[in-house]
Amino acid sequence: MSILVVGSVAFDDITSPSGSVKNILGGAATYFSLAASYFTQVRVVAVVGEDFGPEHETVFHKHGIDTRGIERANGKSFRWGGSYFDNLNEAKTDYTDLNVFERFQPRIPKEYQDTEFLFLANIQPTLQADVRRTMSGVRLTGCDTMNYWIKGTPKELAETLKLVNVLLINDTEAKMLAGETSLPRAARKVLTMGPQALVIKHGEYGATIFFGEGAYGVGSHPFRAPTLPIDEVKDPTGAGDSFAGGFMGYLASRKEVTRETLKRALFYGGVMGSFAVERFGTERLQGLSRDEIDARFQIFRELTHLT
Amino acid sequence: MSILVVGSVAFDDITSPSGSVKNILGGAATYFSLAASYFTQVRVVAVVGEDFGPEHETVFHKHGIDTRGIERANGKSFRWGGSYFDNLNEAKTDYTDLNVFERFQPRIPKEYQDTEFLFLANIQPTLQADVRRTMSGVRLTGCDTMNYWIKGTPKELAETLKLVNVLLINDTEAKMLAGETSLPRAARKVLTMGPQALVIKHGEYGATIFFGEGAYGVGSHPFRAPTLPIDEVKDPTGAGDSFAGGFMGYLASRKEVTRETLKRALFYGGVMGSFAVERFGTERLQGLSRDEIDARFQIFRELTHLT
Repeated sequence: MSILVVGSVAFDDITSPSGSVKNILGGAATYFSLAASYFTQVRVVAVVGEDFGPEHETVFHKHGIDTRGIERANGKSFRWGGSYFDNLNEAKTDYTDLNVFERFQPRIPKEYQDTEFLFLANIQPTLQADVRRTMSGVRLTGCDTMNYWIKGTPKELAETLKLVNVLLINDTEAKMLAGETSLPRAARKVLTMGPQALVIKHGEYGATIFFGEGAYGVGSHPFRAPTLPIDEVKDPTGAGDSFAGGFMGYLASRKEVTRETLKRALFYGGVMGSFAVERFGTERLQGLSRDEIDARFQIFRELTHLT
Repeated sequence: MSILVVGSVAFDDITSPSGSVKNILGGAATYFSLAASYFTQVRVVAVVGEDFGPEHETVFHKHGIDTRGIERANGKSFRWGGSYFDNLNEAKTDYTDLNVFERFQPRIPKEYQDTEFLFLANIQPTLQADVRRTMSGVRLTGCDTMNYWIKGTPKELAETLKLVNVLLINDTEAKMLAGETSLPRAARKVLTMGPQALVIKHGEYGATIFFGEGAYGVGSHPFRAPTLPIDEVKDPTGAGDSFAGGFMGYLASRKEVTRETLKRALFYGGVMGSFAVERFGTERLQGLSRDEIDARFQIFRELTHLT
């Protein structure tokens, strides 16, 4: 099974307590596709500028990622600079230069039309909805969003959410989207907006998946996956997108999407997020093996399972 | 097996988004002993004032809790007033009247001398150490502390920690105690200060137990237990003490303290904490059954375990 991600490919300048890097390959679609590539065939729709060279494309190709959907535009790629201080859960944005990303109009190559799994990374909600509508064969759509759209374009986002099967956001976003201070109440409310499952990411505390009533089999209990307590988080950038890549990639690799595969997907999401933060940028995600991934899955299991 | 808790018995005024109560029975030793009473025989050492009447003692006796160690002093009991706003993880203290608790000198009744499990609730560290030293038959000592002692009496606390097997504190306290911003690093450092196991409570995200090198069998992986996503947390007061009561009470009910019983104890801690917050004060803890507790343990398992 293949999966299509639509989102940003960018270059980042990042500073954290562990050091500083400049001009490294980043962007939601990059983290997502590298993480997902260990599970399934990945296709990318994004826009880059003239600064995106063959050496960058090679990063994708080494992982068998199909880059025919990466459009070249005149100008520079999306560039972001961010700093992390003691609280690694929150980045201070130093600058955001949208550049060619400002006029991003996702165009889905014909060869991508048969994709069955779709991930709408964090872009303007109307673009997300447009992509979903053009992809008639999609079986499962995952979606990310952020405070900026929740506050700025609530109506557009509401339309997008109706087209989405699984929404992946963090605690703050879930509470803001629902207008609730209690996370379980927020979750229940979001699940009436469209998605059949809601993944809430808790940063260093893992993630919880909440299921809509009757969705993916009976029972309404949520499910929680851990993260690995990591001594030195070098760079949290892309952790959420790597989580989404592991989560969606695993789902796309299974024959069926059931409650049980969604739970395992949540574990694989945590696993890929935990790898991502160990080094700056996508470095760790570029050099993994499936064995390493499964070994860490096993550690996650030992971390949470009673015998 | 029996367990002795040394700490406060108090009266609280509490306001939360769910309402407001006045003059209700509280205090760390109260929450702890009620939670632990579902697992084992509990003994209490505390001091109360003349406002502590037979109706309050009955609350303990109904649970078979031995109150011979509760000393009566002239004056009023410890009184605390606190308010919770949207962030239920943090109380705003409205007032603290130590009253008779200010001169608390724990006296261990002779009949308690054979107690094998000891919990030192959050009191001045030198008092904690004194209690531990007078209890020669103790097999396992659990201990709580808080920022006030970590900052104010670090030397005294360091001496106490040398006498402790399991320390139960929250994220902020662990980081402050170790002078570290990374939780896993903080945990490793605290584990060189005396305790063989460290339980870090993450509020609504559960708790993690870290093991000292070689302590309780081989392997160094930590273990994480969830909490229940609860729609309406009515009153978070005493959640940590109820957690400690479930954790220590379960341990005291087992023949041996092993890594596996410590993991299960972490689950039972979460279970008792999750009950405590469902109603104001100790109301929920007063009216439970062991069946309800085990049913929730099962829910915690389903919340975290893959099939």
